[in-house]
Amino acid sequence: MPDTMFQAQALSQAEGAAGPMDAALRARARQVIPGGLWGHLNAAKLPDGYPQFFSRAEGCHLWDADGREFIDLMCSWGPIVLGHRHPAVEAAASAQAAQGDCLNGPAPVLVELAELLVEMIPHADWCLLAKNGTDATTACVTIARAETGRRKLLVARGAYHGAVPWCSPSVAGVTEEDRAHLIPFEYNDAASLEAAADRAGADLAGIIVSAFRHDMGVALELADPAFGRQARSICDATGAALILDDVRAGFRLDLGGSWETIGVRPDLAAYSKAIANGHALAAVTGGERFREATTRVYTTGSFWCTAVPMAAALATLTELRRIDGPARMRAMGERLRAGLDRLAARHGLTIRNSGPPAMPLMQFEQDPGVRLGEAFCAAALRHGAYFHPRHNMFLSCAHGEAEIDTALEAADAGFAAVAAIA
Amino acid sequence: MPDTMFQAQALSQAEGAAGPMDAALRARARQVIPGGLWGHLNAAKLPDGYPQFFSRAEGCHLWDADGREFIDLMCSWGPIVLGHRHPAVEAAASAQAAQGDCLNGPAPVLVELAELLVEMIPHADWCLLAKNGTDATTACVTIARAETGRRKLLVARGAYHGAVPWCSPSVAGVTEEDRAHLIPFEYNDAASLEAAADRAGADLAGIIVSAFRHDMGVALELADPAFGRQARSICDATGAALILDDVRAGFRLDLGGSWETIGVRPDLAAYSKAIANGHALAAVTGGERFREATTRVYTTGSFWCTAVPMAAALATLTELRRIDGPARMRAMGERLRAGLDRLAARHGLTIRNSGPPAMPLMQFEQDPGVRLGEAFCAAALRHGAYFHPRHNMFLSCAHGEAEIDTALEAADAGFAAVAAIA
Repeated sequence: MPDTMFQAQALSQAEGAAGPMDAALRARARQVIPGGLWGHLNAAKLPDGYPQFFSRAEGCHLWDADGREFIDLMCSWGPIVLGHRHPAVEAAASAQAAQGDCLNGPAPVLVELAELLVEMIPHADWCLLAKNGTDATTACVTIARAETGRRKLLVARGAYHGAVPWCSPSVAGVTEEDRAHLIPFEYNDAASLEAAADRAGADLAGIIVSAFRHDMGVALELADPAFGRQARSICDATGAALILDDVRAGFRLDLGGSWETIGVRPDLAAYSKAIANGHALAAVTGGERFREATTRVYTTGSFWCTAVPMAAALATLTELRRIDGPARMRAMGERLRAGLDRLAARHGLTIRNSGPPAMPLMQFEQDPGVRLGEAFCAAALRHGAYFHPRHNMFLSCAHGEAEIDTALEAADAGFAAVAAIA
Repeated sequence: MPDTMFQAQALSQAEGAAGPMDAALRARARQVIPGGLWGHLNAAKLPDGYPQFFSRAEGCHLWDADGREFIDLMCSWGPIVLGHRHPAVEAAASAQAAQGDCLNGPAPVLVELAELLVEMIPHADWCLLAKNGTDATTACVTIARAETGRRKLLVARGAYHGAVPWCSPSVAGVTEEDRAHLIPFEYNDAASLEAAADRAGADLAGIIVSAFRHDMGVALELADPAFGRQARSICDATGAALILDDVRAGFRLDLGGSWETIGVRPDLAAYSKAIANGHALAAVTGGERFREATTRVYTTGSFWCTAVPMAAALATLTELRRIDGPARMRAMGERLRAGLDRLAARHGLTIRNSGPPAMPLMQFEQDPGVRLGEAFCAAALRHGAYFHPRHNMFLSCAHGEAEIDTALEAADAGFAAVAAIA
């Protein structure tokens, strides 16, 4: 065994980390990246045994750097909606790459994609493309302010809308002014939304809402249709913009935008994650009223016109529509949820499933420190399924009945581990 | 001729636009994208005849949607540094794509790339990766504030540091608070920098500077080494962070960071554009002192760990180092510049070349409305070279003597057109 492998294995054992290759990569990463990794893909907050580094993926199967295989229930935290390396998407991406990607202007595929988005999404008369979900939410807020000439933005307390100072969950490096015009309300709470709108008064530029309530670590909560209609009606009455942050849920719940499921249409919407099955892309869609203001807002990036992610998005959305991806993911999510309920009961455990079936969260009752959730996940991982104890998970169209059943076998081991310590 | 082609040709003639396919695409784009296109790749401000849509590229050759071929002197506004579809870069990207791209965590290539960046860039003890130049500049500012616990940021008047409210060149949708802590100074002006630092006083968090002065539409100005040393010394004296915005120039002028050319090392630097030869990637590099604060700043995006752009970056930087890309681009830029001087003189015209040879700008004397510059560019474009009249251009390592000479033949036609109207 080479020295570095030996050291890595020692490290791995000391940390209760994943395999020796993962431990070696983490040790090297810690030298050259603060904290070993930035952001949401940092595995430091996952249970022991969770790997940080991955070597390959196919469909809903994922291999870590040590070659361990898992059924993937996170789908890269959302982007993978058809399955990893989907043939139609990768063929479209490769064909475009063979022509050109990053050029002095867009390729014709931009127009095809923009037309498809406007056709698929009922509220959309136009779109912009970008790279990050945060680009899209920030552009929506800026466009709302440009159109209304007002400043106040109503934001649900605890909601995640991106990772820059106006919305980041951390306050390190954030100034008071970065959030000067935000007014909080409670998601799904009509009285608090009304009170927040009153506080904004004549300076209300917009309301930004997620497709559903998905604050980290607490049960997911679907949007109450009455709450959605109230947000719509406040905006209609005041001229403010209703902004749907559909970055996380978009194209997984409904191809026309996630609030089609509750019959409420936004003025502006932000998309990213699932739009191109893992290729870097984001989008803003908007209604006619906001078109002119959008031409005055300067929003761009060096790679916002690259053609390969657009070709991938065109293929992804076309395939999602052809196979009715949302219905398929909902059905498989329901199968997963029913199986988890059945297995938990068999082990004498009480669980709580929440969220849309395609983006589920499973929690144990009476588990404030997520000790049971972590034990479940650690055991399920050892048995070949990658669950998450705190964050909503994601299904893809590559999850069929067989893959869900394989994941449930791993879950059975997870419940057994919990039953032993509960 | 189909109806749509006929309409497109009519439109094309009416607008003095490029070919019929480009005109047809622009007409369709206008329906579904505000203003027809967002941002810096919008061709609306280029001379008549400039296409907006491109179908393919290879090396330093570029084809528009109508099949017209150009020698490309913009390199996609910076990202293309080795030439389009560089074999080593695309092979590395394809090999990674065949394994996996967007996973539940990074692939091992992250560590290799981070180690290479830290090795190549003398001031760097660590790095972060992102997608946009704006992600990187914003992260630098946030990290500077987190580390110092202060708020004020000195920014050169007219400088471009990104396209979000704190730094966007447009003020539409921007609130006063978004820029509350910015204090302007004049680039290369010691007295104004000193005065700005005095205004910030004990609240000085950082100074952000571009590698050279490249404000749109005016002559480029290299960084004065004395000015750079002064910025360094203010930061050393006050504990503020010296932030180098190397998004535009990074990896084209010096592989160790563009201020290596003037012997000044920043505390934090932002990179993007050329880092991965057109694949979407950005980076922040920083010194040891800023490591801990960086772990407290939450900065992330759905695609910030995708492996394909990292594999492309590793191949790009390795190749740039192997062939000494900056020296090659400088030499070809000098050849272009000498040729332009010679041709202009032959036509009895006075031009002003400015900027680093690899990122040149050519302007005509006494040409405030850029009428002469536009006439030059329009004629050169018709003769097969894509110049820009206002923004610095970019050379790549795919520009050899033959390609520069071909561009100079087109420039000869451009000068003839200017001589006819000057």
